[in-house]
Amino acid sequence: MGNTFGHLFRVTTWGESHGGGVGAIVDGCPPRLELAEPDIQPDLDRRRPGQSPIVSPRKESDAVQILSGTFEGKTLGTPICLWVKNEDARPGAYSEMAGKFRPSHADYTYWAKYGFRNWQGGGRSSARETIGRVAAGAIARKVLREQFGVEVLAWVQQVRTLAAAVDMEKVQPQDVEANPVRCPDPRMAQRMMRLIERIRREGNTVGGIVTGVARGVPPGWGDPVFDKLEADLAKAMLSLPAAKGFEVGSGFAGTRMTGIEHNDAFCIRDGRVATRTNWSGGIQGGISNGAPIYFRVAFKPVATVMVEQETVDAEGRSTTLRGRGRHDPCVLPRAVPIVEAMAALVLVDHALRHRAQCGEGRSPQP
Amino acid sequence: MGNTFGHLFRVTTWGESHGGGVGAIVDGCPPRLELAEPDIQPDLDRRRPGQSPIVSPRKESDAVQILSGTFEGKTLGTPICLWVKNEDARPGAYSEMAGKFRPSHADYTYWAKYGFRNWQGGGRSSARETIGRVAAGAIARKVLREQFGVEVLAWVQQVRTLAAAVDMEKVQPQDVEANPVRCPDPRMAQRMMRLIERIRREGNTVGGIVTGVARGVPPGWGDPVFDKLEADLAKAMLSLPAAKGFEVGSGFAGTRMTGIEHNDAFCIRDGRVATRTNWSGGIQGGISNGAPIYFRVAFKPVATVMVEQETVDAEGRSTTLRGRGRHDPCVLPRAVPIVEAMAALVLVDHALRHRAQCGEGRSPQP
Amino acid sequence: MGNTFGHLFRVTTWGESHGGGVGAIVDGCPPRLELAEPDIQPDLDRRRPGQSPIVSPRKESDAVQILSGTFEGKTLGTPICLWVKNEDARPGAYSEMAGKFRPSHADYTYWAKYGFRNWQGGGRSSARETIGRVAAGAIARKVLREQFGVEVLAWVQQVRTLAAAVDMEKVQPQDVEANPVRCPDPRMAQRMMRLIERIRREGNTVGGIVTGVARGVPPGWGDPVFDKLEADLAKAMLSLPAAKGFEVGSGFAGTRMTGIEHNDAFCIRDGRVATRTNWSGGIQGGISNGAPIYFRVAFKPVATVMVEQETVDAEGRSTTLRGRGRHDPCVLPRAVPIVEAMAALVLVDHALRHRAQCGEGRSPQP
Amino acid sequence: MGNTFGHLFRVTTWGESHGGGVGAIVDGCPPRLELAEPDIQPDLDRRRPGQSPIVSPRKESDAVQILSGTFEGKTLGTPICLWVKNEDARPGAYSEMAGKFRPSHADYTYWAKYGFRNWQGGGRSSARETIGRVAAGAIARKVLREQFGVEVLAWVQQVRTLAAAVDMEKVQPQDVEANPVRCPDPRMAQRMMRLIERIRREGNTVGGIVTGVARGVPPGWGDPVFDKLEADLAKAMLSLPAAKGFEVGSGFAGTRMTGIEHNDAFCIRDGRVATRTNWSGGIQGGISNGAPIYFRVAFKPVATVMVEQETVDAEGRSTTLRGRGRHDPCVLPRAVPIVEAMAALVLVDHALRHRAQCGEGRSPQP
Repeated sequence: MGNTFGHLFRVTTWGESHGGGVGAIVDGCPPRLELAEPDIQPDLDRRRPGQSPIVSPRKESDAVQILSGTFEGKTLGTPICLWVKNEDARPGAYSEMAGKFRPSHADYTYWAKYGFRNWQGGGRSSARETIGRVAAGAIARKVLREQFGVEVLAWVQQVRTLAAAVDMEKVQPQDVEANPVRCPDPRMAQRMMRLIERIRREGNTVGGIVTGVARGVPPGWGDPVFDKLEADLAKAMLSLPAAKGFEVGSGFAGTRMTGIEHNDAFCIRDGRVATRTNWSGGIQGGISNGAPIYFRVAFKPVATVMVEQETVDAEGRSTTLRGRGRHDPCVLPRAVPIVEAMAALVLVDHALRHRAQCGEGRSPQP
Repeated sequence: MGNTFGHLFRVTTWGESHGGGVGAIVDGCPPRLELAEPDIQPDLDRRRPGQSPIVSPRKESDAVQILSGTFEGKTLGTPICLWVKNEDARPGAYSEMAGKFRPSHADYTYWAKYGFRNWQGGGRSSARETIGRVAAGAIARKVLREQFGVEVLAWVQQVRTLAAAVDMEKVQPQDVEANPVRCPDPRMAQRMMRLIERIRREGNTVGGIVTGVARGVPPGWGDPVFDKLEADLAKAMLSLPAAKGFEVGSGFAGTRMTGIEHNDAFCIRDGRVATRTNWSGGIQGGISNGAPIYFRVAFKPVATVMVEQETVDAEGRSTTLRGRGRHDPCVLPRAVPIVEAMAALVLVDHALRHRAQCGEGRSPQP
Repeated sequence: MGNTFGHLFRVTTWGESHGGGVGAIVDGCPPRLELAEPDIQPDLDRRRPGQSPIVSPRKESDAVQILSGTFEGKTLGTPICLWVKNEDARPGAYSEMAGKFRPSHADYTYWAKYGFRNWQGGGRSSARETIGRVAAGAIARKVLREQFGVEVLAWVQQVRTLAAAVDMEKVQPQDVEANPVRCPDPRMAQRMMRLIERIRREGNTVGGIVTGVARGVPPGWGDPVFDKLEADLAKAMLSLPAAKGFEVGSGFAGTRMTGIEHNDAFCIRDGRVATRTNWSGGIQGGISNGAPIYFRVAFKPVATVMVEQETVDAEGRSTTLRGRGRHDPCVLPRAVPIVEAMAALVLVDHALRHRAQCGEGRSPQP
Repeated sequence: MGNTFGHLFRVTTWGESHGGGVGAIVDGCPPRLELAEPDIQPDLDRRRPGQSPIVSPRKESDAVQILSGTFEGKTLGTPICLWVKNEDARPGAYSEMAGKFRPSHADYTYWAKYGFRNWQGGGRSSARETIGRVAAGAIARKVLREQFGVEVLAWVQQVRTLAAAVDMEKVQPQDVEANPVRCPDPRMAQRMMRLIERIRREGNTVGGIVTGVARGVPPGWGDPVFDKLEADLAKAMLSLPAAKGFEVGSGFAGTRMTGIEHNDAFCIRDGRVATRTNWSGGIQGGISNGAPIYFRVAFKPVATVMVEQETVDAEGRSTTLRGRGRHDPCVLPRAVPIVEAMAALVLVDHALRHRAQCGEGRSPQP
């Protein structure tokens, strides 16, 4: 249960960190989209460990294979099966975890739920599960870009207390990729990197905030009342490992404003309805209003720390456990493509839903 | 599309603020639960306008009727139809809105999506839609309480910058209901009330934060990877009118902690696995760990303010609009039962999902 | 569980034969469709008891009310709540059934499943539940007719062994409505009526076959592999009370043909791809091919017979029970609008699904 | 769209006949079930071509691999990915079909829907797609057998006009497997085999009927009103390639009986409620009543015949096409395990649904 996301552009992910691999099925992709592995691999490479000195040194090429759903380089409209083999699995490295629950990991809860767990490398709760999301998200992004003119972009906004200054209307993918921390504020990126390196040397970890933006979304996407655009984005983001919070538009800071300050006055700009400010985050009543959609996701510090910690074992005895293995001191840089993928999955689903109910005609405009 | 919530305990809401009424269908409720209108009405009364001087004076009794699904005072296992008539509708009060889009309301986006809208009182985007949620949530809460020993509780944590101090492990429903602002910190409640009254006199509005807690949830509820407990809670909360943010456990504040600080050490307490701290918010890897689940929801200030604001009309001309009608200066006190309802809907759904896949046997315990 | 039908045009029905009424919610209807009660009532009148001497004399006006989802006579795109009050309920007439299980009814199985049941008039398993289907189906038929040029029609093909001769490419609604038995073969209709009247005098009942046809469906509707058009039609039809069989195209008779006989040769007719024969029933590989879609539904004889029958009571004692109340000697004439409704629900859902994935452009044509 | 089946035990299939393989994801399987490839392979071997002289000689080992969802030989409760590589693909054999539509195949309709198709070996509409169903169904059967005491069995009931006599309460798997045609009436099996061999020599094909039975289903499974047990079975069966009809219990023959004849009198047998006859097919009002569930599925003759047939090409020109390749003269023997698989998927889903809503306690019994 719970391994499928989306209503019309449906993604089902599968796989554990140790086993035959990880992957995803994409069902509902429009036909005749040009699609081959090189359309997907770049996003996987951005998610992959070992890509820079501030992420996990685990070595995996994470090469994706398309097993079905395409023919002569184009989508058939049938399910697309995406598969990435597991390569650098080291089950032995985890043997101590067979009987002990790592604090703030999912070891205990999986065991409590299923009465059984794959203790190798986190099993299904491993961050490797997000490979399927990123692969499917790459397809969603291509559909959004080519068929709807929508661009999704995310970046590291904050690491611990170091907050970047970014113009979300103008920032470009190359600005994000300009440094390993994926923060488009170059000066702050340097400070973030130094912080992450220091934290790693201490055997510790840090969290932070990723901002995501979608530009070019036309007015009219989103389905009230439960499947509001921000509701589906919130679910998408809180389904990510280590995510602890989500806010759209003004978010928590908006709670300190008054209504007169917070309201986005409507105006006519370039012949279309627009807003003077965008505290709404591009969504009103659950439906896009044409302004950029932006949101922020809070990620807690990674749970694997290289110090001795108190815990219990499966027999109910107190014990201790020390983190081992190849982990990230900060999950944020690798979370960026995952946030983009999930946002794209939400948006493409609503693009198709809107087309289903309301047709393809342009939204009415004054 | 989008008017159904839940996978096994499914709620579909319907109705506009002006029309034949609002309501909900609950499908999947366990049979033989004692249920009649008095089990539901108290929560509706807590949501209702006119209940105190700091909320909208709109006068509606919001009396619920059960049209189906029960027999001789017990549930049949068949769909429960809940209906509340609209009574105090004043379409005339909204005539100016027929052609103008209220800033930061859903007028424009509904029109952009559907090419047509019910401009009377907000139509489907009216807060009256939440009546169906609260009615369905009252049933969910009863199932949780009687069949699973789970209690859901919410309260006003913050109004603008006024933040309460509340012990979430001990706070009781009567503490919340002790004052009209529904803040269980009595001293802060007084200050919040004074703030809200002053804001109202100014024709302005304020937002704030509601905290929710679920106590008694056993280890094992929640379905990785997309339907994690916190993901479904996030969706539930962001689907509420005026909600702009959600955080679980340490939330955004957790991004400023290190991993060593943030990890919840496991211990044995009363013969069961427990955690020394609860930064995880009772959920790890998307599955409950037995600790209290807690989360916070950010609500923006109400969009209807009693001052002249810039906007446009449906013909694309610049114009102005001044708020009228009977609105809340602060949505928080009435949001409390709605947050409780949505949390209960998430939890009862996962209770049934867990029973489906894993059976009724107790979770394994060391 | 199980009271919702459809993926994009979603119908949820509710209500028992005795209680506050029966009805349906339609979610996902396209906006701006002209819709008021007179668009729905005629189909309900065709389903209603008391309309002719060969159906149940139960007197109910079955007047539908639209409680939500329309404004100024047009659909809003929001959920449409349809409600029909129960009027002629006579719980007393059913008191004997409180403790005894009627043979071949659902009394025992509801009790076995839920441990509890509404024994008045069949409760949820009453044929009154189909009111919600017919009301929702009337909306679906209007969408199909006005937005897609598709017409759905059904008629009584056979009563017991009396089989009609009907040209399914030419038969019109007025041919079906020309007699109370709803068989467009006038001579056979007379014989069917005499049979039904005789059977009723004997306190007995008969079954038969309804044929349904959909004309004007363009090539391309239907979603392989599980949601094939014929699979969804089969589910829709077997979900009807008293339905025991479904066949599409050549059906069971096709099992006696060879492949050479059965294959539908392709040809070009009026500049479009067509087939010389239509043993496929207008569907190939789960997708419509542009030819008329036709299918047949088998209905068993009504279970309520006016003779003493062996049964057991809820205490597990052998007893007998004699049918009472106002029942139909033959369900077929009233089943016709229900079959039409369900077929329309399947087709409109697939129309929207096709538009979602493949866009609105015309299907490719040689 | 449409490649997922089930609500709680969810199966998603993927793959084309030519490409990286075919497979399925099973989500929602109970944890701790012993499961490895040898639990699945036997059913695949029964479905496989080349197993006997009366089926297609295509040579494929169809060896299944479990890529995820198990650990140390037991299910984890996470998605189980099942994969079978394509081996004996001969795209060249299909080159003529690149431009021509095979009569009564899905070539034209896939092209009309998606504007594009994989013409190699039928692509997604190939019978190879059913490999994923059979693999998933093997897991469902194991859950049903071990956790619910339910056995599902199917056999060939009829080939063209040759109908077997089988006692469905007593027939055993070994009776079905005793001959290549999978008909447990040995004398009729001989005649069927001779018929199929003769038909094959003529380059022709034949259809027939498969009967399925489920024994041991307790009273109470099935969800009215749309997800009735027979409705979900009907959908499952009509989603199979070449299926044209479904009937449960008395089926179409029941339309010729009167109500007095057709009703199943209740009695007490072995201390439990039972029925004297079983025209209902073990289901009443959509819910199982404890009697054996039985149903029949009509399969049309295979569309690939070795004679010249009239058709059109993608440019809209009349042409002819002659069947080539390695096809079955009669699909029935290989359809048997597929029917069993689909029936098992329906039943296990309802087993879990029933447990979710009504708990694990035994159904009430007089």
